[in-house]
Amino acid sequence: MPEEKRKVDMDKIVSLCKRRGFIFPSSEIYGGLNSCWDYGPLGVELKRNVRDAWWRAVVQERDDVVGIDASIMMHPQAWVASGHVEGFSDPLVECKNCHLRWRADQLSGEKCPDCDGELTEPKMFNLMFKTFMGPVEDNANVVYLRPETAQGIFVNFENVRSTMRKKLPFGIAQIGKSFRNEITTGNFIFRTREFEQMEIEYFVKPDTDDEWFNYWVKERFNWYLKLGIKKENLRLRRHGKEELAHYAKDCYDIEYLFPMGWSELEGVANRGDFDLAQHAKHSGKGLDYFDEETNERYVPYVIEPSAGVDRSVLAFLVDSYDEDIAEGETRVVLRLHPALAPIKVAVLPLSRNEKLVPMAREVYTEVHRHFMTQYDDAQSIGRRYRRQDEAGTPFCVTIDFQSLEDKQVTIRERDGMAQIRLPLRDLVSTLQAKLSGEAFTTQPTWSAKAVGTRED
Amino acid sequence: MPEEKRKVDMDKIVSLCKRRGFIFPSSEIYGGLNSCWDYGPLGVELKRNVRDAWWRAVVQERDDVVGIDASIMMHPQAWVASGHVEGFSDPLVECKNCHLRWRADQLSGEKCPDCDGELTEPKMFNLMFKTFMGPVEDNANVVYLRPETAQGIFVNFENVRSTMRKKLPFGIAQIGKSFRNEITTGNFIFRTREFEQMEIEYFVKPDTDDEWFNYWVKERFNWYLKLGIKKENLRLRRHGKEELAHYAKDCYDIEYLFPMGWSELEGVANRGDFDLAQHAKHSGKGLDYFDEETNERYVPYVIEPSAGVDRSVLAFLVDSYDEDIAEGETRVVLRLHPALAPIKVAVLPLSRNEKLVPMAREVYTEVHRHFMTQYDDAQSIGRRYRRQDEAGTPFCVTIDFQSLEDKQVTIRERDGMAQIRLPLRDLVSTLQAKLSGEAFTTQPTWSAKAVGTRED
Repeated sequence: MPEEKRKVDMDKIVSLCKRRGFIFPSSEIYGGLNSCWDYGPLGVELKRNVRDAWWRAVVQERDDVVGIDASIMMHPQAWVASGHVEGFSDPLVECKNCHLRWRADQLSGEKCPDCDGELTEPKMFNLMFKTFMGPVEDNANVVYLRPETAQGIFVNFENVRSTMRKKLPFGIAQIGKSFRNEITTGNFIFRTREFEQMEIEYFVKPDTDDEWFNYWVKERFNWYLKLGIKKENLRLRRHGKEELAHYAKDCYDIEYLFPMGWSELEGVANRGDFDLAQHAKHSGKGLDYFDEETNERYVPYVIEPSAGVDRSVLAFLVDSYDEDIAEGETRVVLRLHPALAPIKVAVLPLSRNEKLVPMAREVYTEVHRHFMTQYDDAQSIGRRYRRQDEAGTPFCVTIDFQSLEDKQVTIRERDGMAQIRLPLRDLVSTLQAKLSGEAFTTQPTWSAKAVGTRED
Repeated sequence: MPEEKRKVDMDKIVSLCKRRGFIFPSSEIYGGLNSCWDYGPLGVELKRNVRDAWWRAVVQERDDVVGIDASIMMHPQAWVASGHVEGFSDPLVECKNCHLRWRADQLSGEKCPDCDGELTEPKMFNLMFKTFMGPVEDNANVVYLRPETAQGIFVNFENVRSTMRKKLPFGIAQIGKSFRNEITTGNFIFRTREFEQMEIEYFVKPDTDDEWFNYWVKERFNWYLKLGIKKENLRLRRHGKEELAHYAKDCYDIEYLFPMGWSELEGVANRGDFDLAQHAKHSGKGLDYFDEETNERYVPYVIEPSAGVDRSVLAFLVDSYDEDIAEGETRVVLRLHPALAPIKVAVLPLSRNEKLVPMAREVYTEVHRHFMTQYDDAQSIGRRYRRQDEAGTPFCVTIDFQSLEDKQVTIRERDGMAQIRLPLRDLVSTLQAKLSGEAFTTQPTWSAKAVGTRED
């Protein structure tokens, strides 16, 4: 059990998130809403940084991927075509005695786990949230909240291809909320009914799909490593043939060692031509592609790397959580990659002294122009360092009485707690170098050899 | 009618948006979904830039505002407290003959506008979308899709204040989707059932509310000017007393001259202590504030600047749309502020020549490291300039045969179509200066004098 060796457990993460303003229970003053969570001031910055790092890596730094942002409510026929109306359901049983409901596939016995009552026969329960658009609540006006962002990409395939004049291979990426009316939720922000996805649909020529599938598995695995996830906490799990959806040719889960065990962080699937072919059939619109090089017309295959924003946030929090000893006491520290840290620099006068504060405010104003910076002069300097350690702030800048004389300040590093003293005029450039520097990117990325193609 | 003088109308905007990949009708292959729109590759970058400019201005560059990201589904009691369950409705009538439904307050006669049939008595129709959380579809499990992001801020007031140790005045900002089941929608992305808001709730000591109200009206008005909205297309409209909600002390709409006329872009309201007092009453949790300076305990007043992301995008598109003459033909150009432009630089070899392309790809690789850049070598150089003009790209970099000899390239400016030739080694620094330079920010911001406080 590798978990036993780790200093982190879910309770510590939930407690830190509440205490430092990362994540609060939703509507907490009303007793909360089952499995809904709100991102607080530090959490929203962390989540923005995760989203931005993904968008930069998969859209902005690439020639072959463009983004879209489709609406959450889509034409109901899209969910017929995708198979969600028919097949996106769990088997549900109800206790005839206490009327609690359970997922039949998660029960071990035949009696109610709560009251030992008799259970009904399983009924299929569709996981899509439905509502009515317009004032009439009848079947003609049912719309669903999307259970995945992927279909918003498929229905826009031809619009994107033609307006952006894209040739295969190319991808379309999207970040957005999805909703699944899960019967069983839990593990903090790991499985919630409202969640955020980051999905890419990468369209390729059919006989190049294995190659691109392997490419994306590696690319996405390395993304987590580059942002600081420890290699020993990340693994690939290939789906067995019996586990694959009927249309999928191959699938890997990128799994992270969460406190509750290895669980899916991202799935990378080779979905063949299933999605575009289904939408072509149901919409009556041709979604095939004319290949000018070979003079062929075909339906592209698609490789889908599908990641969860909230799960990624949780993985980054869990992975960066550490405890060590500072000044004889246990210190909690989030060793977040600086690209993800909500606050990059904290400016702290040694005390709330009338001479120190004006100089510290000046330093703050200057540093704040360049980085997300926090000013803090409340309580002892030791307590303020602890607060910034828990927030994952990579650098604190301290202004002391000597600073008034020699115009030098101290940079205190989060990870090793080393302190260096330097002239104020070098502060911004030094921070710039440290924040973008090599120190945070020395971890070797995952090598190409670890993934083969499916031989059978 | 100032509209008559403008070169833009809604049809031109809708058509440009479709043609260039800014905005598509949602689920278009299925015939679309009423009033739902999808942002395409250029639209998603524009929308991201609008959101980011707002977030930087109101959160990251300020000491006194922090962000949150609350869930779309909230505890249903929050909507009882806010007044939405009781009062967020429109009067609806149905034609007894053809069964079409209408908003009673928008009809001029007493007969159906479609078939002249008799209408029913008006019934109040609640605009919140509702759905069921969990497998049982009964009243106990109703949840609403939030009709505004504001309430997610109010219910988190105490969590944010205490974890961030904030003192008044301070604000909480949020960007996110909201949903209103409007009976009447329209004007492209101006009024849709699914839309995105950018809201600030700024909490102040009660007797300082007028001052802060005026501050925020100015601050928000100037934000649009700084990002290039023409002063003559922006105005303030103060709500008359009869128009104010019963709890509101004062309210200004920031209106933009859209193609359909002056319409609300953002509202700035002084909401007094209504929201926090309501949530305190309904939740039983104290949401008052202890003022350490005066030793008083009171419920803060709140100033609410509430903007629409989609409306802002539409205003920036409309305002930047222009037509002039280039090479004897009408040229369509989006004069977007460079901070908002989806693509900052396009790199264009004069032709798809085997010697030009490698050099152009090298230039692209270098420039792309610094800015969102597009490479394009398809069709004539003139047509490629036109495409970039329509996309709002501020600068094109052209590589010609002379470039192979003298290592110089041409920067072509979108707005005046001026061309300057410069050594390749100066390209990035020149673009950097031009993109962040004064050229785009010479418009005087709106002066403090234009808004007074309410005298009566």
